[in-house]
Amino acid sequence: MTMAKRDTYTPESLLAVAVGVFNERGYDGTSMEHLSKAAGISKSSIYHHVKGKEELLRLAISRALDGLFAVLDEPAAAGDGRAVERLEHVVRRTVEVLIAELPYVTLLLRVRGNTGTERWAMERRREFDHRVAELLKRAVAEGDLRSDVDVRLATRLLFGMINSIAEWYRPARAGAATVDEVADAVIHTALGGLRTHRS
Amino acid sequence: MTMAKRDTYTPESLLAVAVGVFNERGYDGTSMEHLSKAAGISKSSIYHHVKGKEELLRLAISRALDGLFAVLDEPAAAGDGRAVERLEHVVRRTVEVLIAELPYVTLLLRVRGNTGTERWAMERRREFDHRVAELLKRAVAEGDLRSDVDVRLATRLLFGMINSIAEWYRPARAGAATVDEVADAVIHTALGGLRTHRS
Repeated sequence: MTMAKRDTYTPESLLAVAVGVFNERGYDGTSMEHLSKAAGISKSSIYHHVKGKEELLRLAISRALDGLFAVLDEPAAAGDGRAVERLEHVVRRTVEVLIAELPYVTLLLRVRGNTGTERWAMERRREFDHRVAELLKRAVAEGDLRSDVDVRLATRLLFGMINSIAEWYRPARAGAATVDEVADAVIHTALGGLRTHRS
Repeated sequence: MTMAKRDTYTPESLLAVAVGVFNERGYDGTSMEHLSKAAGISKSSIYHHVKGKEELLRLAISRALDGLFAVLDEPAAAGDGRAVERLEHVVRRTVEVLIAELPYVTLLLRVRGNTGTERWAMERRREFDHRVAELLKRAVAEGDLRSDVDVRLATRLLFGMINSIAEWYRPARAGAATVDEVADAVIHTALGGLRTHRS
């Protein structure tokens, strides 16, 4: 039996609860009943805020995607500088957004389903990866990244490295690396290896 | 209703079916009923081969771990050469084992549970990571890897990159990179970036 509390949720605070439950149980394994219990309010109170769990998924994933895509529009990413410098900015900022929005990006990365919202999320992720791959391609053309590694393969490995952060990074853990240290480590490890020369 | 076929399974062929089901449904989400349906034999036939699903999990994970740990004992990994060369061998062979035993390693990487077998698997994974981290540490001491990236962070990022291969590599896909190309790309991307100089 659930002790219903007064519904003082905003859409944002309800979303934070829902994302936690989605990440713990998986989206498929989460029912409105689970969400109601975790939030401590009735299902009908939740329906007062959103149409259902798929809308919560869409809102949560939008938050992650908006943060990631905004990086690509920042002047240092979208400007007309050398592609390798723009790429370095994108990698650093992607790591920062991933850590700042950790539960939301974790959810985005784990989604692998068959609802329209999940398919849309996977399509948008591919679009993001594709735009970063374009930067890599340009940096190869400009002679700043090695040309003997396939760009698609390099992009996958780069995102494999970055996305893994969501699985092991816990900012609150004692002795945890800072966001800057993690971003520097990614850049030193992956980009240092891809560059044809050291800057 | 299941049409039971004659039980011509060996432990190995039954294991291959079970690993496929575990990876598709998750270990927690798999019942003996699911295994029986996928194998096309009765539950009691399965019990003729193994004590239950946890034994199948243990056998599957052992296969992945045996392959990975064997790499560390190969002469080129365990010998007294420079640590950076031994590390490069370990990275290449780890990628090869991951791809050769793709479903088994995928299962190992996804395990995050509370049965004794799952805790044992996670403990053995940490042990493997730790032994690779020792190689990185030695290579830093020998001056072959940059010392301004924390060894634990570098190890996590390196395995983040390698382990991601299990999520996106499909050997049968048209135009798929070869195992050698994938291993080369990992070494060029990650180790090239970690080395203080190019070999």
